[in-house]
Amino acid sequence: MPVLQPIVTIAELLYKKGISDVVVSPGSRSAPLTLAVARHPHLRTRVMADERSACFVALGMALQSGRTVAVICTSGSAVYNQAPAVAEAFFGQTPLLLLTADRPHEWLHQQDGQTINQVGIFGTHVKRSYDLPADYSHPDAHWFIERTLNEAITLSQLSPAGPVHINVPVREPFYPAADESFMYGPVRIIDVCAAQPTLAPETWHGLLQEWERSERTLIAVGQIPRDPALLAILRKLSEEIGIPIVGEIVGNIPQNDLFITRTDTFLAGIDERTAHSLRPDLLLTIGNSFLTRNLKTFLRQYPAHRHWHIQPAIDRINDSFQSLTTLIPAEPLAFLEKLFADVDYQRFLQGDDDDDTHEYLNLWRTVDRKAARLVEKMLLSEPETLTDWSAVQVVLEHLPENSLLHLANSMPVRYANLCGVSERQQISVSANRGVSGIDGCLSTAVGAALMTDQLVTVLIGDVAFFYDRNALWSAPIPPNLRIILLNNDSGHIFRIIDGPSRQPELETYFETPHGYTARNTAQDAKLTYTVCDSLDVLRSLLPDFFHPGNTAKLLELTTDKLANQNQFMAYKAQIASLHNTTA
Amino acid sequence: MPVLQPIVTIAELLYKKGISDVVVSPGSRSAPLTLAVARHPHLRTRVMADERSACFVALGMALQSGRTVAVICTSGSAVYNQAPAVAEAFFGQTPLLLLTADRPHEWLHQQDGQTINQVGIFGTHVKRSYDLPADYSHPDAHWFIERTLNEAITLSQLSPAGPVHINVPVREPFYPAADESFMYGPVRIIDVCAAQPTLAPETWHGLLQEWERSERTLIAVGQIPRDPALLAILRKLSEEIGIPIVGEIVGNIPQNDLFITRTDTFLAGIDERTAHSLRPDLLLTIGNSFLTRNLKTFLRQYPAHRHWHIQPAIDRINDSFQSLTTLIPAEPLAFLEKLFADVDYQRFLQGDDDDDTHEYLNLWRTVDRKAARLVEKMLLSEPETLTDWSAVQVVLEHLPENSLLHLANSMPVRYANLCGVSERQQISVSANRGVSGIDGCLSTAVGAALMTDQLVTVLIGDVAFFYDRNALWSAPIPPNLRIILLNNDSGHIFRIIDGPSRQPELETYFETPHGYTARNTAQDAKLTYTVCDSLDVLRSLLPDFFHPGNTAKLLELTTDKLANQNQFMAYKAQIASLHNTTA
Repeated sequence: MPVLQPIVTIAELLYKKGISDVVVSPGSRSAPLTLAVARHPHLRTRVMADERSACFVALGMALQSGRTVAVICTSGSAVYNQAPAVAEAFFGQTPLLLLTADRPHEWLHQQDGQTINQVGIFGTHVKRSYDLPADYSHPDAHWFIERTLNEAITLSQLSPAGPVHINVPVREPFYPAADESFMYGPVRIIDVCAAQPTLAPETWHGLLQEWERSERTLIAVGQIPRDPALLAILRKLSEEIGIPIVGEIVGNIPQNDLFITRTDTFLAGIDERTAHSLRPDLLLTIGNSFLTRNLKTFLRQYPAHRHWHIQPAIDRINDSFQSLTTLIPAEPLAFLEKLFADVDYQRFLQGDDDDDTHEYLNLWRTVDRKAARLVEKMLLSEPETLTDWSAVQVVLEHLPENSLLHLANSMPVRYANLCGVSERQQISVSANRGVSGIDGCLSTAVGAALMTDQLVTVLIGDVAFFYDRNALWSAPIPPNLRIILLNNDSGHIFRIIDGPSRQPELETYFETPHGYTARNTAQDAKLTYTVCDSLDVLRSLLPDFFHPGNTAKLLELTTDKLANQNQFMAYKAQIASLHNTTA
Repeated sequence: MPVLQPIVTIAELLYKKGISDVVVSPGSRSAPLTLAVARHPHLRTRVMADERSACFVALGMALQSGRTVAVICTSGSAVYNQAPAVAEAFFGQTPLLLLTADRPHEWLHQQDGQTINQVGIFGTHVKRSYDLPADYSHPDAHWFIERTLNEAITLSQLSPAGPVHINVPVREPFYPAADESFMYGPVRIIDVCAAQPTLAPETWHGLLQEWERSERTLIAVGQIPRDPALLAILRKLSEEIGIPIVGEIVGNIPQNDLFITRTDTFLAGIDERTAHSLRPDLLLTIGNSFLTRNLKTFLRQYPAHRHWHIQPAIDRINDSFQSLTTLIPAEPLAFLEKLFADVDYQRFLQGDDDDDTHEYLNLWRTVDRKAARLVEKMLLSEPETLTDWSAVQVVLEHLPENSLLHLANSMPVRYANLCGVSERQQISVSANRGVSGIDGCLSTAVGAALMTDQLVTVLIGDVAFFYDRNALWSAPIPPNLRIILLNNDSGHIFRIIDGPSRQPELETYFETPHGYTARNTAQDAKLTYTVCDSLDVLRSLLPDFFHPGNTAKLLELTTDKLANQNQFMAYKAQIASLHNTTA
């Protein structure tokens, strides 16, 4: 048996526990792990040199597939380069398995290279951190390694999913002899049965009573992957029972005749009378974080009397609107379907299923439609100028049906939320909203594109793009990737938000203009590159841009920061008068 | 008083405690810190968008100046992007002050953006981690902040120097009103007196006796900044007392007629007889880590009977040769000067200061000279081919006197150590040997160049260069920077070292060729760019390349990975026979 057989066994354990994909960054200490997964007949491995990008790519792969992706890196600061993606995976509840090669612990603080304190290095940003033994002579070591891999992979997938860290100290020699072949089995697999949280009948009954008592019930949907069944039950709840459904682009709530998606516009500077009329008795939330600050502020300033949050497993008390009364362990879809069925039956028994006026819903729909008209009018007022916002609007309209959209942080995700996508397009939207950093958005999109044949479009600003351009280095870029870069030569958000735009330090200390275009980056990465600075040209380019092809494509949209600012300021001035004109 | 006066006070505390330079990455949560340092009349601030590069730039600035550099970043994964540089600063003993803006703690796990667990986030890789209060209403909060800044800055500089973390939760509003001006004083400064560790006379006497008893005493110098006084006393110890001085390029031990610098060559595959003849009775070490694996292996396999390590302050027991007997708290220069004086006086009293044959020294010098001839012959054997090694040799020969050299990790630092620099050139050599990562070498060199008018040359391989190319983005690049890029289109070290070069996975999983040249990166960063693939042309280019100018310059040397490998393998074959021919 090879000295490092337990390392070879790890690869087989990954496979047998359902992991199919591994992202590897090169290194010598990690070589046994790398070779073990590379030679495994069923694992797909991809290699990327920059560990920061590599780990965000793995995150994108896990987001897209819903399955745990393993990441291998060598010892030392390599590990710390993964930390930004690990934090995003933790707060974004994305399953990763981090296998970090290490020196045996006795070498820590002995001035050896690439040796840092890797035990528990990710702190509270992993669900658990393990440390494997460096010596395998005692049979319990093998038992420990097998058991740990079983537990770690299971744990990464248990709700809330997230990253799990296994530190792997490795002794030399790292490389097998020429005549040594790897043996991949058998391994011990410990099955962990799946179970759904089920509420006791009396608990359910109590909840139903509370629901019935509420005259104004609001459902708000945080970030959640696209699910047609979930959209269907939300539509029923709104259409048939008159519940307003408030959602955002990152919650995969599309624009249609029913859903309330323009909260960012109509809740800005809302007058007290309207706010009180919209205030719910009962607020029911599903999904993770909300993007829209104005929605969060509204729900904190005009809190619901009762707030239920439904999530599959209870871990912490997340009280982001400061009004939570009830945390309900349930799958949102199953919960809402049962709720609808029971409420609908109750209404049938009472014979009151037809005479609802849906007053509360109509209040929300009225302000939402008004906001829609305002945004539309504003975008039409300067139909010729390519601004970040108008570009996003046009791009979203042209997205191919059934494609994927990854929204980079800072302004793109906000503009996209102001615009929305139509229900017809059936777009699956993702964004790194666990921590909301700009650091790995491009890599995440690359990872998502690697796991699907569908087209993946990433909408990204220039700072996020150049920050993370190593996403495009040292790995094959999937041909179904479409990058749309909004290049206004600055961290544009600082010119849009109130505080920094008033400071004399705005440009030097916040926007940090760089003068870069993406032409060279695209050339180095062998992307099909187009640059555009006109809205008309953009419209004419997009059909071809979204056409499938053999290489990934980058479309750089050059916008002017002052034009962007003027448009946004004009919008702000108009929303300030939105509710006045109501009165 | 502005609400955020304590934040403004932090800037004044930095200045009054001797910090002159701050590196800032843009953000909104960190805006009060940013504005406080930007508006301070005496602090120099530099802005970089990528926190990973920013923190390595700060590291380079601190390395070059020997003073604490402050780093400001916003909340969330921004902080984690600094972690690779923090680890390097910790193990490389470089003083940094990390000021990380944070949300008030009650918002952790409440699904707010850019909110992670920042308290103690760098684990054991900072000397200490503080967490400031978010509320300033109680006067003790001000006392706490002032005291903490005093302690943290002092601590970063106390030997061993290193990074210190202060987490700074900030409440809104982040931005001052238009009419609000910042008040920078007065602040409380707590002076901490400096003191030198002093050995008791009986301790010193005991050490002297041990020294006298040793017939074969060896001094080995680990990584340490260049110090002419230290070189002078080492020369005296060798010349007058016959002590072999073993050192490396990163220890700033130059090549001259005395110092032993070719250990990597002559200790490789050393025969047992020669090894025993070189084995010291007493080994005395100063400085931090050693680069040369063959030296480390030799000193572990043929351990000294007594091993003294001299360092200014005792923190941990670093026993990297597994033979340490005595840890001596002393400044190396002062210790060696006193030692020489006492030993020399003793020899004068005994009248034996002339009749030393310096046999032990001569043994070391013989093998060192033989190694020098071997390397010379090998490089001369193919005088026309530009390889990584021959390029490094030519570059080092042409380095301007009194300039700085930063050696990137992986192969450049190893090749440079094989070549060495001459004493005449008076080159100050630095390298990130705390953790020895490739992740921030370019940024570190940029930082060093920002703090001096001397020329700073960085010698770097292609993987390290592209990995860290954000060093050249979003900040002015100092005109005294010279980048020499060895582009062999791969992680070349894997082809050089034994294990991976034998694996079928070598190219795909270890070398990871990318096909990039630096032309586009140089153009984007507005560097003067030259590419070269011939040794003759290189020789003719270098004088002009090193000439001072208005822009930084990048010289890309295109080498062939097979030629590099062949040369290195030929070298290895020759050193294997080095000691046989002695016999």
